[in-house]
Amino acid sequence: MDNNTHLVIMAGGIGSRFWPMSTPHKPKQFIDPLGCGRTLIQLTCDRFADVCPMANTWVVTSDAYADIVHQQLPDIPVSHILREPCRRNTAPCIAYVSWRIKAENPKANIIVTPSDHIVMDVQEFKRVMRVALAFTAEADGILTLGMQPTRPETGYGYIQADLSAACVRAKEIYRVDAFREKPNVETAEKYIKQKSYFWNAGIFIFHVSTVVNALRVYAPEISSIFEQLLPVYGTADEQAAINQHFPKCPSISFDYAVMEKADEVFVFPASFGWSDLGTWGSLQEQLTKDNNGNVAVGPDIRLYDSSDCIIHALGEKRVVVQGLNGYVVAEHDNSLLICRRDQEQRISKLAAD
Amino acid sequence: MDNNTHLVIMAGGIGSRFWPMSTPHKPKQFIDPLGCGRTLIQLTCDRFADVCPMANTWVVTSDAYADIVHQQLPDIPVSHILREPCRRNTAPCIAYVSWRIKAENPKANIIVTPSDHIVMDVQEFKRVMRVALAFTAEADGILTLGMQPTRPETGYGYIQADLSAACVRAKEIYRVDAFREKPNVETAEKYIKQKSYFWNAGIFIFHVSTVVNALRVYAPEISSIFEQLLPVYGTADEQAAINQHFPKCPSISFDYAVMEKADEVFVFPASFGWSDLGTWGSLQEQLTKDNNGNVAVGPDIRLYDSSDCIIHALGEKRVVVQGLNGYVVAEHDNSLLICRRDQEQRISKLAAD
Repeated sequence: MDNNTHLVIMAGGIGSRFWPMSTPHKPKQFIDPLGCGRTLIQLTCDRFADVCPMANTWVVTSDAYADIVHQQLPDIPVSHILREPCRRNTAPCIAYVSWRIKAENPKANIIVTPSDHIVMDVQEFKRVMRVALAFTAEADGILTLGMQPTRPETGYGYIQADLSAACVRAKEIYRVDAFREKPNVETAEKYIKQKSYFWNAGIFIFHVSTVVNALRVYAPEISSIFEQLLPVYGTADEQAAINQHFPKCPSISFDYAVMEKADEVFVFPASFGWSDLGTWGSLQEQLTKDNNGNVAVGPDIRLYDSSDCIIHALGEKRVVVQGLNGYVVAEHDNSLLICRRDQEQRISKLAAD
Repeated sequence: MDNNTHLVIMAGGIGSRFWPMSTPHKPKQFIDPLGCGRTLIQLTCDRFADVCPMANTWVVTSDAYADIVHQQLPDIPVSHILREPCRRNTAPCIAYVSWRIKAENPKANIIVTPSDHIVMDVQEFKRVMRVALAFTAEADGILTLGMQPTRPETGYGYIQADLSAACVRAKEIYRVDAFREKPNVETAEKYIKQKSYFWNAGIFIFHVSTVVNALRVYAPEISSIFEQLLPVYGTADEQAAINQHFPKCPSISFDYAVMEKADEVFVFPASFGWSDLGTWGSLQEQLTKDNNGNVAVGPDIRLYDSSDCIIHALGEKRVVVQGLNGYVVAEHDNSLLICRRDQEQRISKLAAD
């Protein structure tokens, strides 16, 4: 492991689509949807175990979740758990942590990852990460991962790669032609056929000097804020200063603020069983189905005359389901959801206060 | 209240048809299916509040449930909680408690009731009880209550009354023509049309000398056992003697052992919103339905696109149900049931270990 390698886990999400498994009090990244004994943020940290030293791992989260982060990842230095006083999307988040890391190590080579995705093939994931880090250690470009699409998904953004020529020093890496917003079904089907479109997994790899320069050029209203805070990083005054100035940042994604504008932007098409677990349906794809297409996560789940159901009830001693076809059933923390799978996009609305 | 009035609550049932709300560890009588804050045995005791003195109240239960009975009914004298060492149906149960009460008060006028039924019109119930007690205080007969049937139920036994002449001293009370086992649908429909058939609610009222004599005549193999234990009733030796001799009793219902054979048997047709809560469906009849025929018991239950469901989840902070028609959903003590209502007779089998 290179001591210049830093890992940033973005853990500020409040995801409500996975109710009742996730709630604003305990969003998806802090729960264990697979029933494996580790939460998503723990799994995220785990898969970088021999890619990045724990001492170089950072988490950016909201004030409300800082304690949960510390409980679930006790080996991460407390000073590396950065607290956003408010939600401002990913560009201010990445800017803050980049300046913060730069103050500590101007040679840092950084991976930024969401905290609530899953990866099934961790070995391939680590290989991809090492190749990516080697690339950004040398090249003054921002690298993003493009997930090989397996279906015309309309819930993800797409990255169009220029597959005509791979990079000289990294044969698996290509220049980005364009970033595409979440498409409709027809467009998604067109993307799939063209083979040069990949799902945008929201994972970035860059040298700290590259990202800081890119932010200075493309997002000066953000970079100027974190530039002026240089004297306080790592001091007792940092949090107060962040609380005062962070809210001034515009709320904007890193994709929109930087990636879509910058020239030196690259994509690494990869395939390691990735899912953002954005929906109950996407969880089902990752788990083993019985002969009737049911997925069950819980200690004692009994299905009779049922098919195509997702049953997720880790806290229930016993679940008996009879005569249910095509439903999500989820119990967590004394809340229960039963919903037709084709209506699952309504969950956060149905469960809202 | 007459100090000779005694109440016997039979609480030995292990009902499994209400899983997961009831389990062998905590059967139906000890839970609160209506969500009213009182368990069924507490409600049973409550509705005799000014009919029978608490000091004259008895509970017959199994060894395993004696502690729960004491916790839930702390005002009943501990010596009045009788422990059956094994299950022998209602005839030995009633024989034991009758001899036990006779040893204390040979003038006792006794009501015997199941512990897990509900009554909606408690005022009418009390009136019926007072009339019944006045009858058995004078008449040397066993009185049973006949519930006015509201549907051709096949889950209950029926009592055929001789409606040609009411008793001289109690105009609402009639002689019994016959006891009928649970009928099939055609027979049940015939019963309903004939107007002289009533549901057998398993509630008996008798003078202690009447029941003791009836048991001596019709069930000598049972009466001889409790007759020989006369010296130990109310002493420190009672439980050991019961543990030794009670298991010798045949397992037989009081209906079969006595009621169907005795001559002086009477029925009091009554109507006070009674249900034995034998099934989830029978619970639904007792609770208020929404416009779509749903019944919901729980602090925050939200139903969308759903009809004819019974949702029972007192321990869940929030339940969201979408797109479900004709199901029972029940959560209790970290166990969850989802079952088509027309399959609910399979519940105890589906949930069995």
